[in-house]
Amino acid sequence: MTRLSATITSIAPLDDRAQAAARERLDRLTKPPGSLGQLEDLIVQLAGITGSAIPTLDERAIVVMAADHGIVAQGISAFPSVVTGQMVANFLAGGAAISVLGRLHRARLVVVDLGVVVPPAPHDRLVSRRIGPGTRDFSREPAMTRTEALGAIEVGIELASDLVATGCRLVIPGEMGIGNSTAAAAVVAALTSRPAGDVTGRGTGLDDPGLARKVAVIDAAIALHRPDPSDPVGVLAAVGGFEIAGLVGLILGAAAARLPVVLDGFIVGSAALAAVRLAPALGPRLIAGHRSAEPGHAVVLKALDLRPLLELDLRLGEGSGAALALGVIDAAVRLQREMATFEEAAVSNRSGPA
Amino acid sequence: MTRLSATITSIAPLDDRAQAAARERLDRLTKPPGSLGQLEDLIVQLAGITGSAIPTLDERAIVVMAADHGIVAQGISAFPSVVTGQMVANFLAGGAAISVLGRLHRARLVVVDLGVVVPPAPHDRLVSRRIGPGTRDFSREPAMTRTEALGAIEVGIELASDLVATGCRLVIPGEMGIGNSTAAAAVVAALTSRPAGDVTGRGTGLDDPGLARKVAVIDAAIALHRPDPSDPVGVLAAVGGFEIAGLVGLILGAAAARLPVVLDGFIVGSAALAAVRLAPALGPRLIAGHRSAEPGHAVVLKALDLRPLLELDLRLGEGSGAALALGVIDAAVRLQREMATFEEAAVSNRSGPA
Repeated sequence: MTRLSATITSIAPLDDRAQAAARERLDRLTKPPGSLGQLEDLIVQLAGITGSAIPTLDERAIVVMAADHGIVAQGISAFPSVVTGQMVANFLAGGAAISVLGRLHRARLVVVDLGVVVPPAPHDRLVSRRIGPGTRDFSREPAMTRTEALGAIEVGIELASDLVATGCRLVIPGEMGIGNSTAAAAVVAALTSRPAGDVTGRGTGLDDPGLARKVAVIDAAIALHRPDPSDPVGVLAAVGGFEIAGLVGLILGAAAARLPVVLDGFIVGSAALAAVRLAPALGPRLIAGHRSAEPGHAVVLKALDLRPLLELDLRLGEGSGAALALGVIDAAVRLQREMATFEEAAVSNRSGPA
Repeated sequence: MTRLSATITSIAPLDDRAQAAARERLDRLTKPPGSLGQLEDLIVQLAGITGSAIPTLDERAIVVMAADHGIVAQGISAFPSVVTGQMVANFLAGGAAISVLGRLHRARLVVVDLGVVVPPAPHDRLVSRRIGPGTRDFSREPAMTRTEALGAIEVGIELASDLVATGCRLVIPGEMGIGNSTAAAAVVAALTSRPAGDVTGRGTGLDDPGLARKVAVIDAAIALHRPDPSDPVGVLAAVGGFEIAGLVGLILGAAAARLPVVLDGFIVGSAALAAVRLAPALGPRLIAGHRSAEPGHAVVLKALDLRPLLELDLRLGEGSGAALALGVIDAAVRLQREMATFEEAAVSNRSGPA
């Protein structure tokens, strides 16, 4: 059995007993039943994922996977490829949005180079797992070989395993890669058999002609490669990215280890969709942190049957929307842990004469 | 000039220069322009409210105003009035949702007794400003006199002043009062000239017959008192609550002192609507923390022209939705303060050859 298939096989259904225990506690807390709304669903889901009615998620990691994209040669991005490596340096120096949010929420930030055009300088929080110097231009040839796609997925699985071994209890997959909203749109279009126009947005800020070009490039690439929607690895190889494939492995590995996985926006969502197609049992283990302004993200969330915790129209990537949602997740866990029960607080828990 | 009219007069328009400075900084940060979505609007609004492009909001208070309601005699609540005082004790003991969220976000919790039926035991975080032992049953007579309504508003203004004097930089108004979703619905129905059915919900958990009774009680009370929608103080006196009037004063006083006011759900929203009717300049100084599941809250947010930061279907009150939103507000301020600029991080800030 390959490491990928072993990981897929080990993703378990949610823990029913922990979910029931979480629900039972929620109904004893000093509040009207159900009055914490979506937070109550979240608390029960976290219990099912972790196996604990009151999970401990204090150790958490944001894993930003970075790589470059040959498709940028087709003029589909508002920023040049060199920015990928510049932003990797910014993540590590602490100046990017995800760096700030990681500090705010006490999350470890790990940056993984899966193939940035200009290899970043070594750093103690940079993990170098280069598959190559960026993908090939998928308007002309497959973005990568099947072996490369499987290699990137395995990098993600290994990283999840390393995180678990060092005490991590929750994972936020993030990404950086100029051009990767094009790759993500192509992956989603291929997996859902939709035209590119349904799932393609402006990324970091394309104008109207740029958006039209991006849609045309994706449609043409799918017509050229004809990836099989039932073969997610083949889809990733044809039109994906090294970091997207890495995210697929990270998500699968974290889920297999019963770590909650908090999803960010469209690019991470495209990886989650590919991961769920590989491992349908994964679905209930995913938490949608934020709905991005990128139009394809709504398609992804619908396909994953997820309701996001936040809808703040961010379109930044990096893991930023999920990192923001950590505040809500922490609040939910704290409420479940620290609120008094009706009995403890001597509060009346039913109607009576006024 | 009364203290109320002096407060209304001193509410200033937003600071344009601070807003422009905030926008200018946002566009230099290492992210695609506008990519922080609603957080960018929030950052600019906070700058306009406080007069600072990078505001400091570390000192913040949650002020829970509590009182009882004579209208509970009409069977409009799923819980008895005694729960108001029990929950006040729970707030102070640290076991309620708002206590937990206050600790999480390092907010001072102040509880104000404006007329709980059974006066709570003294506590160093309990402020006693009792107008009376609960309002009168507004299905039979006005909930309070005009003098009482003005007195409760003045309590709120004074509290805001005390908070500012002790260094507070942001206020979350919260509330507790069994029966107060009925009073709030009556206030909103009266101020917006809508039938009660449009703005009345299940509160802490009414069944269908209870909801029908609640709607009928409100419609009948408005027909009895015929409050003038252009006289918010008269509306509060006829069908409001001591804590709702107190919240009106707190919101006005905080806004006059240029403190951001983060609104919770329907009951606080009804007070904010009354406050805006008294002081239209207040509007741009309000931040909607959360859209509650209570149907009248959508009506209030529309009337206030506010988009909430969170939509998690909470229906708990206490200030809980706003306290949750503090996580998002803190994140926005930290991003504005700590992100690197393109120049500082040596990241390319425009398109170029790939």
